[in-house]
Amino acid sequence: MTSIPSAIATPPWTRRHVISLADFTSAEYNTILQTALSFQEVLSRRTKKVPALQGQVITNLFFEPSTRTRSSFELAAKRLSADTLNFAPGNSSLTKGETILDTAKTYLAMGTNLMVIRHRQAGVPSMIAQEMDRLNTGVGVLNAGDGLHEHPSQALLDLFTLCMTLNPEEPRLELLDSHKIAIVGDILHSRVARSNIWSLLASGAEVHLAAPSTLLPTLFEVYGRDRPGKLVLHHELTPALENADFVMTLRLQQERMTQNLLPSLREYHRQFGITRDRLHICKPQVKLLHPGPTNRGVEVTSDLMDDPEISLVSRQVTSGVAVRMALLYLMGTGEE
Amino acid sequence: MTSIPSAIATPPWTRRHVISLADFTSAEYNTILQTALSFQEVLSRRTKKVPALQGQVITNLFFEPSTRTRSSFELAAKRLSADTLNFAPGNSSLTKGETILDTAKTYLAMGTNLMVIRHRQAGVPSMIAQEMDRLNTGVGVLNAGDGLHEHPSQALLDLFTLCMTLNPEEPRLELLDSHKIAIVGDILHSRVARSNIWSLLASGAEVHLAAPSTLLPTLFEVYGRDRPGKLVLHHELTPALENADFVMTLRLQQERMTQNLLPSLREYHRQFGITRDRLHICKPQVKLLHPGPTNRGVEVTSDLMDDPEISLVSRQVTSGVAVRMALLYLMGTGEE
Amino acid sequence: MTSIPSAIATPPWTRRHVISLADFTSAEYNTILQTALSFQEVLSRRTKKVPALQGQVITNLFFEPSTRTRSSFELAAKRLSADTLNFAPGNSSLTKGETILDTAKTYLAMGTNLMVIRHRQAGVPSMIAQEMDRLNTGVGVLNAGDGLHEHPSQALLDLFTLCMTLNPEEPRLELLDSHKIAIVGDILHSRVARSNIWSLLASGAEVHLAAPSTLLPTLFEVYGRDRPGKLVLHHELTPALENADFVMTLRLQQERMTQNLLPSLREYHRQFGITRDRLHICKPQVKLLHPGPTNRGVEVTSDLMDDPEISLVSRQVTSGVAVRMALLYLMGTGEE
Repeated sequence: MTSIPSAIATPPWTRRHVISLADFTSAEYNTILQTALSFQEVLSRRTKKVPALQGQVITNLFFEPSTRTRSSFELAAKRLSADTLNFAPGNSSLTKGETILDTAKTYLAMGTNLMVIRHRQAGVPSMIAQEMDRLNTGVGVLNAGDGLHEHPSQALLDLFTLCMTLNPEEPRLELLDSHKIAIVGDILHSRVARSNIWSLLASGAEVHLAAPSTLLPTLFEVYGRDRPGKLVLHHELTPALENADFVMTLRLQQERMTQNLLPSLREYHRQFGITRDRLHICKPQVKLLHPGPTNRGVEVTSDLMDDPEISLVSRQVTSGVAVRMALLYLMGTGEE
Repeated sequence: MTSIPSAIATPPWTRRHVISLADFTSAEYNTILQTALSFQEVLSRRTKKVPALQGQVITNLFFEPSTRTRSSFELAAKRLSADTLNFAPGNSSLTKGETILDTAKTYLAMGTNLMVIRHRQAGVPSMIAQEMDRLNTGVGVLNAGDGLHEHPSQALLDLFTLCMTLNPEEPRLELLDSHKIAIVGDILHSRVARSNIWSLLASGAEVHLAAPSTLLPTLFEVYGRDRPGKLVLHHELTPALENADFVMTLRLQQERMTQNLLPSLREYHRQFGITRDRLHICKPQVKLLHPGPTNRGVEVTSDLMDDPEISLVSRQVTSGVAVRMALLYLMGTGEE
Repeated sequence: MTSIPSAIATPPWTRRHVISLADFTSAEYNTILQTALSFQEVLSRRTKKVPALQGQVITNLFFEPSTRTRSSFELAAKRLSADTLNFAPGNSSLTKGETILDTAKTYLAMGTNLMVIRHRQAGVPSMIAQEMDRLNTGVGVLNAGDGLHEHPSQALLDLFTLCMTLNPEEPRLELLDSHKIAIVGDILHSRVARSNIWSLLASGAEVHLAAPSTLLPTLFEVYGRDRPGKLVLHHELTPALENADFVMTLRLQQERMTQNLLPSLREYHRQFGITRDRLHICKPQVKLLHPGPTNRGVEVTSDLMDDPEISLVSRQVTSGVAVRMALLYLMGTGEE
């Protein structure tokens, strides 16, 4: 068990819950980036654990099933020496008529210190967070994806990955200022895109959204209201990619076809799929991100996914553990 | 890792298995209450672990799916520094034709020291316990709910919760002597009720059962044979609640309707649901218990569940971890 | 936490992946047997843990569901103080269109040091191992069963069990030389049989296969090409059992009936089921093995399974933890 790098203890942190990035401050983004950098360093050691949250209980309440995100949070918690409980649906009391709040309160009463919550309905993590506050529990809630609302830890790991690409010594939010970032794909159904829009706009980046009109309604313009000219919507791919520094592709769920939102996967790929040819109009050093799981050959060609000069996909996953350690650490020790 | 409070080591314990409370002695109840009190104190510290069962393997054999009980046992085991294995059906060899005993023996051969067993068939934990003894394994079996038979750890956490309400400094069985406790609901199908009847009668309390006659056959009188006048059956709610010190409600499973045991949930609630009005005939300081998960508005109104002056539901869950730590600790160290 | 017996550190080990036993050397078999013996000794202590793999992440990628094998690997990993991640299908991204390699690479990127992989398709662990090498990850892959190909850790625990029966002080491969071992049952569909054929032939044992012709095609003779006379196929039971030192029975999956490979379970048992009577033609000290889960009364009678003079089934399970600790230990520390 190695000691915690002293740098980790420094930044102040007052936010008990992480539900949405809509009102995150630059200072908060930079605290997370700095703390994640310290944990990234811990993860490169032979003994990858710190005793920071020893004896604390982190409960993963994943009402919506997930493997990769739950594994990432579970590993982050173990690296911090916390104990973890996993609630999964299927075997659950929910099918027995229990309310979501009662499930959360049960895990609270068992001794949970932090809850990581995923639910297919937007607003559930926020509702539980409010209840935890109302009861003066001191328990923090981390939104691990709620419906079409937000998935803040994914956007934060994307941010960390982007900033580390620009300056691996000192990843700071401001590094992205004036960089052009294209977000391509099923934006309408993506909580990842919504969280990323907040963090990227906060950085001063220019955010270009590209999707068929059925997957990118004009109401998305509202996100850019406070940053005139920084958020641009496109219903074709080319103008979004032109001179882009980074391209973020989003997962396209097969069921969008049956909902008459798209003619076919092949047609989608023909119009919005990222290929090596199409990247030629981006900046020469363009990098590609994808939150996974990927449909190779649909959102992006297989060769690009595997090209270490272009794809940041593996680094995103690695960043995920460090960023989630940072979040759990800051939330778990911030008030003591 | 904090040291074990010296008080924990004191009480003698000779019972290898905990299957039923039918023959528990007052000394055994008090040993559990005293040990749970020590662990409750451990759980209030910042570092909530003791090294008591380090290196031991506790296997949760939950043939019947469960989330809250399994999580409670899992957390109790982790707090004692034991390693845990979870066997869950679905992915199981049972669907491949293996017998229950062979499954248990497989986990025995892997090195299991204690087995926590839930099965929808009454008698399975007892059968496995007998086999463990026959083979001279020294392995203890804890019944975590078997069919309609018993659920001793639930009744023990209820007992701990009740006694702590009466004297949080020194919870003892005798505190409940002559108190009136009403158990209301689907008693016929409740292993929780059966275990509670044993422990409450042992305490000297007056136990009043109330349910529609379809859910409370007169054969339940047999439980009170050795304690004349201490167990009373009612087929209406009012006499059970009159001057009661505590009201225990039981979960009503929806499938009872389709089995023609009840006309409707609304009708059940009208006759046996616990409401604030109805509690007025109880003692002024009456407290309410429910083993969860709760159907709010059926067994009990939502406002009562959330009233911290009346509801002990959260404390029951918290007590569950301390009581299960006590059971695992006593069973795991009792003979050495 | 006890220290690692010095004996464990001795043997050299250079194999990064364990996919198949086809090319295992005698030295490798003996290193595993010797290391497993040391860990068996650790497992008999009160504190059964060694800090050998502290901070390392072992990921169980069980694309095909399994309970007993996964539990055995999980316990082995915990005994070595590694952290474990479990990937299980059902809740998986695979149903979302992700490729197997992308799933593996995701767990790689999270920080996995060793992967234990089960898949119903032969070749998957090998494919992932090749990718791990191509990417210079240093990550080892252990095949925990791939389709009809191999299940090396099962064969190695069988080997350890056999050798320990012959010499519990010093289990060595050469002990089996010239012993007769009958493998009886559904050999065609058994990856366990295939791995066992390699290890037993390597030991110099005489391996007799017995099954109905539908479950034992003559192409199995190819396994004995390099060991003339050492591998014998039988389509009836008696000649296989005659003077056998050990009888290994294999699990018969019920679905073989519906595939028209067998007339009925009763008919199979009548012809190839192992009974006490039939063992009389074996050596007097004959021992019985079965990889489990067992269909009692089909592959073998219930009384034989439970006869401690004859059945090695429980010892196989116990050996499994020690042998898997040895494999994970050798693979996890071999190159540093």
